[in-house]
Amino acid sequence: MENGTKQIWGFRGNEELKIASEITVRGFLNLLMFHVNKDDDRPTVPLGHGDPSAFPSFRTTGIAEDAIVDALRTANYNCYAPTVGVLPARRSTADYLSRDLPYKLSPDDVYLTIGCAQAIEVILTVLARPGANILLPRPGFPYYEARAACSRLEVRHFDLLPEKGWKVNLEAVEALADQNTVAMVIINPGNPCGNVYSHQHLEKIAETARKLGILVITDEVYNHLTYGSNPFVPMGTFGSIAPVITLGSISKRWIVPGWRCGWLIVDSIKGCLDVSSDPATFIQGAIPQILENTKEDFFSKIIYIIREAANLCYERIKEIPCITCPYKPEGSMYTMVKLNLCLLEDIGDDMEFCLKLAKEESVIVLPGMAVGMKNWLRITIAIELSTLEDGLARIKAFCQRHAKNNKI
Amino acid sequence: MENGTKQIWGFRGNEELKIASEITVRGFLNLLMFHVNKDDDRPTVPLGHGDPSAFPSFRTTGIAEDAIVDALRTANYNCYAPTVGVLPARRSTADYLSRDLPYKLSPDDVYLTIGCAQAIEVILTVLARPGANILLPRPGFPYYEARAACSRLEVRHFDLLPEKGWKVNLEAVEALADQNTVAMVIINPGNPCGNVYSHQHLEKIAETARKLGILVITDEVYNHLTYGSNPFVPMGTFGSIAPVITLGSISKRWIVPGWRCGWLIVDSIKGCLDVSSDPATFIQGAIPQILENTKEDFFSKIIYIIREAANLCYERIKEIPCITCPYKPEGSMYTMVKLNLCLLEDIGDDMEFCLKLAKEESVIVLPGMAVGMKNWLRITIAIELSTLEDGLARIKAFCQRHAKNNKI
Repeated sequence: MENGTKQIWGFRGNEELKIASEITVRGFLNLLMFHVNKDDDRPTVPLGHGDPSAFPSFRTTGIAEDAIVDALRTANYNCYAPTVGVLPARRSTADYLSRDLPYKLSPDDVYLTIGCAQAIEVILTVLARPGANILLPRPGFPYYEARAACSRLEVRHFDLLPEKGWKVNLEAVEALADQNTVAMVIINPGNPCGNVYSHQHLEKIAETARKLGILVITDEVYNHLTYGSNPFVPMGTFGSIAPVITLGSISKRWIVPGWRCGWLIVDSIKGCLDVSSDPATFIQGAIPQILENTKEDFFSKIIYIIREAANLCYERIKEIPCITCPYKPEGSMYTMVKLNLCLLEDIGDDMEFCLKLAKEESVIVLPGMAVGMKNWLRITIAIELSTLEDGLARIKAFCQRHAKNNKI
Repeated sequence: MENGTKQIWGFRGNEELKIASEITVRGFLNLLMFHVNKDDDRPTVPLGHGDPSAFPSFRTTGIAEDAIVDALRTANYNCYAPTVGVLPARRSTADYLSRDLPYKLSPDDVYLTIGCAQAIEVILTVLARPGANILLPRPGFPYYEARAACSRLEVRHFDLLPEKGWKVNLEAVEALADQNTVAMVIINPGNPCGNVYSHQHLEKIAETARKLGILVITDEVYNHLTYGSNPFVPMGTFGSIAPVITLGSISKRWIVPGWRCGWLIVDSIKGCLDVSSDPATFIQGAIPQILENTKEDFFSKIIYIIREAANLCYERIKEIPCITCPYKPEGSMYTMVKLNLCLLEDIGDDMEFCLKLAKEESVIVLPGMAVGMKNWLRITIAIELSTLEDGLARIKAFCQRHAKNNKI
């Protein structure tokens, strides 16, 4: 201080937040990007995050862009939105989701949120009460863990089984639950595993939840992004067996994660929304046009590219002995692969693998520990095919260079 | 249940949230709107909330609309944004705010948020630690109380003094603070009081904060919306005396609260932002054009209308004996008026006044209890002048009808 005396300030940061923020995908990716070698002339290959929007093949449909411009130009959406979202957007979201359900949703069942992220935040905040616990999948999406930590909601993990197509270990779910368990979370199509659950497995999940007296929170942000044998079935199909809360957004299917518009399908949670923000009103105003007018060929083109990417990735990984993919992805934008550390010379774990890969090859891959699976990797496949090919070639070269005896 | 047995479900809502949501302006306004008589053919006059965007005179500038369309059409902003906001938007926000400061902000000092509301949420969450307390103004903006409740941050209130132009009672601030006090909040230009603090009073606030070793959080969401004798002076002017965190947004000056884009000016709070959402990326992309290209005549037209409204409101209220305005507003969009209940026959408090006014006259006014001042009212003046005139005439008729002896 200017006069040489030491001023004492009475504030400091919230420690819980520091812990919560360190376990997000974002936190890991920021760290890895920091390690990329600035002198590497090659473009960085982003196999770490679920956002292909920067690639020309993944540009969103003009119909969605036009919808935003039309809504903006009316000047009817410069205002604050109602707590729950504007009615036309809630109505069209209800209609859009009802197409896949055996019953019809009402606009009153729909709450618009700032992407699926805020839907997660809202539902975990609503369910948090002293002593409560929630069952989360492992591997999973660590934003759930982060938001649970923020709300002091105890987390218990059940495993997804790689040898069974990443199905939920329902015996583990039953063993973990007690009278303080409020809900279980499933992500379908799966992040990070790329699995798509069958009608039958979803029904078993609902029956288990009913037996335990808990909610099913179903994260369907990748709904309809499927390209294997199982079609997408919404968990809401089994809403008569157990109470289901569905989370989703336009982020993934329309490739516009930056537009921050999602939804939460449920009733009686208004209390939480009154103390949080809403998606930009004119984006809400655009939702009916986006959901109702988008042509099927836009969706099928995107699915075609990701299916090709899944095939390419699966085949190329077979050529790399130090990583194994137990399950070819059939949905979402990712695949989980296992590191065979015993074949690598100077790499101790998944985090070291990813840091060295970023530094030496300018390829970003998410370490499995970020999604609860130590010594696995999550690879994003939803990028331009040529870039994916380049990235996988660099991963192969990296693995060869670090292989024991320097050859494999 | 279908088989007649009663299923037990193990979840229920978070009680703290219910309490938090009941104290927001939104909660009160929703309740009052519900009481408006559906059979009243007259348009409802909204004197309760700070959002004049629906009125033609308050339509935002075409420059801001064009900026959004331009950003959207590049397709460069469909992606997730970085945690802190996109760089060009942070840079232009730093430049925009630096115009009024004796030093230059860096883009690194700027965090973009989902309106000013998320800036409030972030800073209160960051400062919450066990045992901490924060000093809030009374009357104030109840979103602070709601977010403090969510973060379990203890709230202590200091009074604003109506007879002194709603200045902060700095003696009360000193008496309230202890070693667990982390910050004090000021709102300048003032919501709900319409006051604008002088250079000298702001300096005294900074000196008090320094003496107590606490942060000053300055809510400047109404910056430059001044129309009296005191010009707007940012609290950051006194950043060398005490640490200042500035909150703001484009919502009020550009009349686009629904665009949900604000900022928080500070350093070292990244941890919290990693676990929250961002403003829509293409809106961030539009920020440089909005901040740099908006013409002065747009701002001065808005100021002109609100000044006229302040004059009109102040004069008309003088004609209504049962309400008194101690201070003619000079900034923001509101005025606080005192209810003289002894002159009213069948009205027990401010809430009853507002409920009956909504029901009988379709006029929405915020009860003072919503902002911490029992038996006062907050009246929004930033609406179309003809609508304001209509609303004030209805309030006068209402007061005459409910006056003791039915005449005044």
